[in-house]
Amino acid sequence: MKEIGIGVIGTGFMGKAHSIAYSASASVFGTGLRPRLEIVCDLSPERASQRATDLGFSRYSSDWREVVNDPAVELISVCTPNDTHAEISIAALAAGKHVWCEKPMSTTLADSQSMTDAATASSGQTIIGYNYTKNPAVTHARKLIESGAIGRVAAFFCRYDVDNEADGQRPWSWRMSRDRSGTGANGDVLSHVISVGHYLTGSTIKRVVGDIAIVHPERDDPDNPGQQKTVDNDDMVAALVQFENGVHGHIGASRVTWGYKCGLRWEVHGTNGTIIFEQERLNELKLFTRQDDPATDGFRTILTGPQHPPYSAFLPNGGHSLGYMDVKICELHELLTSIESGEPVWPSFSDGLIIEKVMDAVDRSSLSGQWVDV
Amino acid sequence: MKEIGIGVIGTGFMGKAHSIAYSASASVFGTGLRPRLEIVCDLSPERASQRATDLGFSRYSSDWREVVNDPAVELISVCTPNDTHAEISIAALAAGKHVWCEKPMSTTLADSQSMTDAATASSGQTIIGYNYTKNPAVTHARKLIESGAIGRVAAFFCRYDVDNEADGQRPWSWRMSRDRSGTGANGDVLSHVISVGHYLTGSTIKRVVGDIAIVHPERDDPDNPGQQKTVDNDDMVAALVQFENGVHGHIGASRVTWGYKCGLRWEVHGTNGTIIFEQERLNELKLFTRQDDPATDGFRTILTGPQHPPYSAFLPNGGHSLGYMDVKICELHELLTSIESGEPVWPSFSDGLIIEKVMDAVDRSSLSGQWVDV
Amino acid sequence: MKEIGIGVIGTGFMGKAHSIAYSASASVFGTGLRPRLEIVCDLSPERASQRATDLGFSRYSSDWREVVNDPAVELISVCTPNDTHAEISIAALAAGKHVWCEKPMSTTLADSQSMTDAATASSGQTIIGYNYTKNPAVTHARKLIESGAIGRVAAFFCRYDVDNEADGQRPWSWRMSRDRSGTGANGDVLSHVISVGHYLTGSTIKRVVGDIAIVHPERDDPDNPGQQKTVDNDDMVAALVQFENGVHGHIGASRVTWGYKCGLRWEVHGTNGTIIFEQERLNELKLFTRQDDPATDGFRTILTGPQHPPYSAFLPNGGHSLGYMDVKICELHELLTSIESGEPVWPSFSDGLIIEKVMDAVDRSSLSGQWVDV
Amino acid sequence: MKEIGIGVIGTGFMGKAHSIAYSASASVFGTGLRPRLEIVCDLSPERASQRATDLGFSRYSSDWREVVNDPAVELISVCTPNDTHAEISIAALAAGKHVWCEKPMSTTLADSQSMTDAATASSGQTIIGYNYTKNPAVTHARKLIESGAIGRVAAFFCRYDVDNEADGQRPWSWRMSRDRSGTGANGDVLSHVISVGHYLTGSTIKRVVGDIAIVHPERDDPDNPGQQKTVDNDDMVAALVQFENGVHGHIGASRVTWGYKCGLRWEVHGTNGTIIFEQERLNELKLFTRQDDPATDGFRTILTGPQHPPYSAFLPNGGHSLGYMDVKICELHELLTSIESGEPVWPSFSDGLIIEKVMDAVDRSSLSGQWVDV
Repeated sequence: MKEIGIGVIGTGFMGKAHSIAYSASASVFGTGLRPRLEIVCDLSPERASQRATDLGFSRYSSDWREVVNDPAVELISVCTPNDTHAEISIAALAAGKHVWCEKPMSTTLADSQSMTDAATASSGQTIIGYNYTKNPAVTHARKLIESGAIGRVAAFFCRYDVDNEADGQRPWSWRMSRDRSGTGANGDVLSHVISVGHYLTGSTIKRVVGDIAIVHPERDDPDNPGQQKTVDNDDMVAALVQFENGVHGHIGASRVTWGYKCGLRWEVHGTNGTIIFEQERLNELKLFTRQDDPATDGFRTILTGPQHPPYSAFLPNGGHSLGYMDVKICELHELLTSIESGEPVWPSFSDGLIIEKVMDAVDRSSLSGQWVDV
Repeated sequence: MKEIGIGVIGTGFMGKAHSIAYSASASVFGTGLRPRLEIVCDLSPERASQRATDLGFSRYSSDWREVVNDPAVELISVCTPNDTHAEISIAALAAGKHVWCEKPMSTTLADSQSMTDAATASSGQTIIGYNYTKNPAVTHARKLIESGAIGRVAAFFCRYDVDNEADGQRPWSWRMSRDRSGTGANGDVLSHVISVGHYLTGSTIKRVVGDIAIVHPERDDPDNPGQQKTVDNDDMVAALVQFENGVHGHIGASRVTWGYKCGLRWEVHGTNGTIIFEQERLNELKLFTRQDDPATDGFRTILTGPQHPPYSAFLPNGGHSLGYMDVKICELHELLTSIESGEPVWPSFSDGLIIEKVMDAVDRSSLSGQWVDV
Repeated sequence: MKEIGIGVIGTGFMGKAHSIAYSASASVFGTGLRPRLEIVCDLSPERASQRATDLGFSRYSSDWREVVNDPAVELISVCTPNDTHAEISIAALAAGKHVWCEKPMSTTLADSQSMTDAATASSGQTIIGYNYTKNPAVTHARKLIESGAIGRVAAFFCRYDVDNEADGQRPWSWRMSRDRSGTGANGDVLSHVISVGHYLTGSTIKRVVGDIAIVHPERDDPDNPGQQKTVDNDDMVAALVQFENGVHGHIGASRVTWGYKCGLRWEVHGTNGTIIFEQERLNELKLFTRQDDPATDGFRTILTGPQHPPYSAFLPNGGHSLGYMDVKICELHELLTSIESGEPVWPSFSDGLIIEKVMDAVDRSSLSGQWVDV
Repeated sequence: MKEIGIGVIGTGFMGKAHSIAYSASASVFGTGLRPRLEIVCDLSPERASQRATDLGFSRYSSDWREVVNDPAVELISVCTPNDTHAEISIAALAAGKHVWCEKPMSTTLADSQSMTDAATASSGQTIIGYNYTKNPAVTHARKLIESGAIGRVAAFFCRYDVDNEADGQRPWSWRMSRDRSGTGANGDVLSHVISVGHYLTGSTIKRVVGDIAIVHPERDDPDNPGQQKTVDNDDMVAALVQFENGVHGHIGASRVTWGYKCGLRWEVHGTNGTIIFEQERLNELKLFTRQDDPATDGFRTILTGPQHPPYSAFLPNGGHSLGYMDVKICELHELLTSIESGEPVWPSFSDGLIIEKVMDAVDRSSLSGQWVDV
């Protein structure tokens, strides 16, 4: 088994998730490249040191450039705040590394374009962490759609609701500032929705009309007790969309919805059937196709199992359930396979750039009140 | 118990549904006005006669004017094709009758306006048959919203998908022609969505941007074997909407979706909670409100029962389930109560007119590509 | 359309439900015998008079013998307390009437036997109101099973949980006394379970071993404030069962379960598939049969619709939902069809007697701790 | 961070699952003992060597005694066929190791007793892999029950259905022989049910009456084409049970049910509420407790999240879903914590023995037709 040297930059949740994926990948798949955990980086040396121990890395650093320039490192995870993705990724690609960058790609279209240019100029493979397309249930949905199981796709509907900021008593944070964070629910949450739409339809969104709303326009200023501070980016966003291949859809996202915890849910309507999925039940896919006997028609709840690759790398029996972390391992496995084969993986930086352009178009349309071309 | 003389015009499914409601109403509620089935009307005298027998009317006619002018008739059900609603309703109101008119109100805004004018000029009570707001589960949702149980309403999302025309092999029909039928999914299906939105929010939609799609643009011409005929109204329609009271939403409808049979489903997101409903499980309401202990937070599935008026008029125990026909009886009961009290019932003709205006705005916006004020 | 004269004895919920069914039946089905509401009976003349008005009967009485002997009455509903079913039913049959008797059949096996003997000696048709077998979804399940869609039936599992007595603060009532009411959850609730088992398998239970439990053995004595009274019949009952045709199963019931309101749910496991049903979602049937492609295997949720007779007598489109009352109308329709054809309907008194015998066997087994033959 | 040397014996699915858990544990929890993968064992040296590489062990062996006697090894996973558990576990305990043994404990009560005696005589910690009790949702259920959230527990119901042998065309295997494998569905599947019952109630089953069935009594003999071979252990098993603390229940299991893939599902009924769980949706717990306002009563679907330890070791946000493998890591974490603290973990060998005794009692009762004390 060939090894590949790994560097992870950023040790928040995503840095941890990537590290666990690197640890487990070879055990799960037993084939292909075997990750070797070389170096982990955090701005705080103490934390970097601790995380190296916890997560099983050989070395640590508090300077991301050390990771980028480390000759033992071949693949780098960029798990830092969004506004640093571009600089680190571009440097890593320039240094000949492969890059696994978390979503969203960056905080400006210009940065995302530069990242894509850097990837094009490099021999490295790239992937953006749009994880909700890597679940075997979703992969199976894509396969069903491609095979024509539901006919020609006519419509795609998707919402993603979370409760992160649902509590209006939560104080103002930098995420609620256009200057500091760009869009709100759009960048954080809707980006996943767009990735799923592109993945499932095998097409991309070409036109949008959007609408945004700020549900809690004033929040307590954490720095000035008793005062309020203005939220100026979107708590909620919605859009009507048209895809290149003629599919129509509507998409939406909210960071202020009570009750949903990971409320991504989508439907694909085709001329011969319908597929429905809910992320909170990620091991289930609902499929309707016409039966010979209409008296037994109905949505079928398919539980993921060994028939849905790469489920069987994890578990021998259906219905035993993969979790979020397992799907992150699937994502890594696709990247490692891509690095071995030299074939790009979806969504590479150039695929991610298109998603960013749709997010941007939704935002511009929401502000202008016009349909906007992507 | 005071009686009220009934005339039913039209003997298709809706004429039958109204008639059954009239038969059962007094038995169920045991109070208020007792319907007396006077006369039923169908264009075919044979069918009219047969239906009078089946449905328990004293008399029948093949001329709707006889019903309108019948002195024993006080309340008239208009269950005829949509393009006849205006003429019949206006005549009935002019004759001093109360009118229960099926949805959609008519086929043109002008007709709907005339109907509303006639209602205003009359002492009769009117109601449009937007039945999906009369279910005790939905009434309870409205009550929860009004009471502030989920805080300030921020968003309303609703789709209604049916499979009526999902099969692309079904031949062309007059319903697929703008000239003959007006809009497609908009008038047939989205109208219900709008009624639900108005009912739940206690507000009305003021601005929309819409999008329509024709999924099967050519269908077999039933009159010319081997030839195709063009479908020129919407198989699918979607819109972003803004309400008078600041609620944002998206709504959609389709007549070509496989798998959904009566696929109306909606969500209301508030600043303290969320409510979800699916018409195919019409006895269930999902409610999320914050618990003291977040470890026991979760959507609650409320089964309708005696705590949800007027459920207890039908059944003494919860969970025993009302059906579509029972909800039609609830609708009638509201109308009869209105007639007794002299207080208008929602949605009267003037409420229905606003719904028609929203439908029209969605259609105009879909054609113009602009946000449109209602 | 031929008419049939109706007498209803007892005006509680079941008397009302029967009366509504009689009113609606002809309108719904439009064929066959048309009920003519002759006379209704309640012990209180005032109430009887009021109910005659409310429910649309021509006459009323406070003496059930008047109903039984009324020459205009051909079909009698027995909706009185359980310990009066036998006397009234036997008299009605002796008078040449058909009888629709509510469940459970009576309070003793001897009474149920006498009722059966009276039915055998009479030309009248009889039916016991085991309503949960009359729903089109359940009828369809039976049809699927008979057709071999799930292979040979191997197992039947069913529970019925309700919350009627779940609150331990509710005072003692006569229902909690073996002397006054016989068994508890067994007679009230498990009887339905057994009826469903017999109906679906087309066989009958031949051997049982049971277990009972009294969850709240003492309750407040309503007649003696501050004192407690002993509950001596079953709050919960469960049994392992074996059917004549080799099916094995377990069944159970409780009157003290929180959360379930009408919690009848069953599974039938066959050698080629499985069927699942929940009464609280009475318009859905879950069916699993093997697919050619195991990757699309899964339970299908079938919504009742026009393909499931007699749904289409009520509604033209699937998914619109029948309710409890509609299913009661289906039950009546089967009885009227039986009266017209002269063919017995299931469950006649003799079918009901077998159900009573199983209930008795479960109770005896629970007390003796032995397997018991029915 | 202190390390602990690990040996894994057996490299089938469970050996792999244990190994992945050992790899991920420290990364996930970041505290406590850090597993150091020393040696893996498989009867085939080639396979052992390959698995050492894949799974990240330093060494391998084809002789389990080498693992047991390896001084660098402190904790041993026993993932071999059931009839070898006793010999290996006893040797490991005698050598002063801790033991993580897969379920069921062994193939005879005598062996399970010897294992328990060895554990008692040893200072090693032991655990049997009854994984379905280690899920944060289930742990939370136990906590709710202990805290009295649903009052006094009255009933426990649980079934576990799988489709392993549902296809009657599958040939005979040694698992279908009492001589070779002991009981069928009882040992394989019902054992989990019993573990869950003991865990949730905090009590143990004391009396049972059981029933078994062989659904496919003859299967193709894989060694003699065209001939059949007799299945003589249980395809299905069911029992009524009584717990030491007065809870009544029924339990069941089947290896021949179509549709369920990992169909463990249970209910706990208490005097103030009800809890429901389905393993195929392992991140959801359904809880009913009485609300102040009965109009908002209903089962709440709780999604596991950071409020449900140790979920937050894996994921920072609720609803993101743990999978089977994560729960195995939870199980390991409990064992490692036990090793550190010296406090036994549930279910140790002595707890596992009680489960075996219940399985044995169910089997004896099924054969004798009598209630049996455990």
